[in-house]
Amino acid sequence: MNITLQQAEKAIEAAKQKAVAIDTKMNIAIVDAGANLVAFGRMDGAWLGSLDISIKKAKTARYFDMNTGIVGELSQPGGSLYNIEHSNNGLITFPGGVPIKNDAGDIIGAIGVSGSSVENDHAVAETGALAI
Amino acid sequence: MNITLQQAEKAIEAAKQKAVAIDTKMNIAIVDAGANLVAFGRMDGAWLGSLDISIKKAKTARYFDMNTGIVGELSQPGGSLYNIEHSNNGLITFPGGVPIKNDAGDIIGAIGVSGSSVENDHAVAETGALAI
Amino acid sequence: MNITLQQAEKAIEAAKQKAVAIDTKMNIAIVDAGANLVAFGRMDGAWLGSLDISIKKAKTARYFDMNTGIVGELSQPGGSLYNIEHSNNGLITFPGGVPIKNDAGDIIGAIGVSGSSVENDHAVAETGALAI
Amino acid sequence: MNITLQQAEKAIEAAKQKAVAIDTKMNIAIVDAGANLVAFGRMDGAWLGSLDISIKKAKTARYFDMNTGIVGELSQPGGSLYNIEHSNNGLITFPGGVPIKNDAGDIIGAIGVSGSSVENDHAVAETGALAI
Repeated sequence: MNITLQQAEKAIEAAKQKAVAIDTKMNIAIVDAGANLVAFGRMDGAWLGSLDISIKKAKTARYFDMNTGIVGELSQPGGSLYNIEHSNNGLITFPGGVPIKNDAGDIIGAIGVSGSSVENDHAVAETGALAI
Repeated sequence: MNITLQQAEKAIEAAKQKAVAIDTKMNIAIVDAGANLVAFGRMDGAWLGSLDISIKKAKTARYFDMNTGIVGELSQPGGSLYNIEHSNNGLITFPGGVPIKNDAGDIIGAIGVSGSSVENDHAVAETGALAI
Repeated sequence: MNITLQQAEKAIEAAKQKAVAIDTKMNIAIVDAGANLVAFGRMDGAWLGSLDISIKKAKTARYFDMNTGIVGELSQPGGSLYNIEHSNNGLITFPGGVPIKNDAGDIIGAIGVSGSSVENDHAVAETGALAI
Repeated sequence: MNITLQQAEKAIEAAKQKAVAIDTKMNIAIVDAGANLVAFGRMDGAWLGSLDISIKKAKTARYFDMNTGIVGELSQPGGSLYNIEHSNNGLITFPGGVPIKNDAGDIIGAIGVSGSSVENDHAVAETGALAI
């Protein structure tokens, strides 16, 4: 019930290909069911600040078992989870973090991608998540 | 492809002269291409709290290779990068951080300035960045 | 003068093969010349606590451009660098971190390995470093 | 009763010249009477990990108004200040941090130097402190 390194590397490879296809440079992080880093890759020339963001997106997606952008809708001023980003040594709640499921539908980890627009980040993360 | 200490000191000197010219007292930080501090100067009487802000502005500008104020436009409530400031041990996303380029246009570091209005901070940072 | 993702992945692959050959399960981290993470892999069943250690070993090796074990010899009680581990948000100064050089002899990054005895950790790190 | 930026820059300049004279590459930090950074310079090619160490040495020297090496003699196992390094977000207690006094003998700040042997670090720090 936990992602393997082989699966994580497969997800990163698929994400990288998608990133190249849409002409972006990404940081790509995979965490396991325990929200701990399994694999990571920073493409040459990708934003340095996106390193930490990609890891935090992956953790956030597994912490709450949902896409990070959904958390971000609830964390706005006046929202029910206002400023939840202060927990867990910092969450990132805009799109780019996606849970990873096995064939049985169990969540076995998550992927976080950062380096471009949040739409591109999410598209690359989804490609990675679906590669497993 | 990395800023030298001599270049960093030249940038700080130019920034200080600009700060004096507009009657402000600034903290001025320079980071290299790896976002690590190269040089720093706090003018006498400058706000103490601006010390950390100037360093975070410089790092933020290099983390994303853009002026810090641009990040801040996207990190507002409802914006696509809302609360991105929780990453990287704290970003500062209002104006005053500017990437530094060499003659070939490569980014070799960044400057962060804090101690007055954000308009003044940005003006001083830009003066420092252009001195190289 | 900076390690590429392709080089980092090659180092991780070589390190993994060495880890398998000596029947160990390792966390393997690669940082660039700026001591920022480039690639990471945690082998299935590797100690969870070694995740952070492997990253700190890689950073430590680049911070001081030497094998981590050399720092550890100097940081013992009574040694000239006693308790240096309190700097840089935590160093790891026992063996397992090794600088990575290019063909010209320039240091372009570092590898950190953790998951077994320090002798095994160092052997796997060296194998990874030499693969580039 | 507080070091000025001009004095701090003078100390860094003297320290740099000493560092060159003994063929070393140093990180040099100056803090004021409040133990807050006033000026900093990292010489080209100096150890990256010494950045934080130089700042912590300067702070430690001002925190206790003595050379850092004296603190380190007391922080050894069995010593009266055993593991004092855990305080203040991390002290560095080996040589290289020296208080800075004005002509009246008042402590107005401190200098921290890191990048070589602790003997060299201390020699460069002392040169910087005496330049004021």
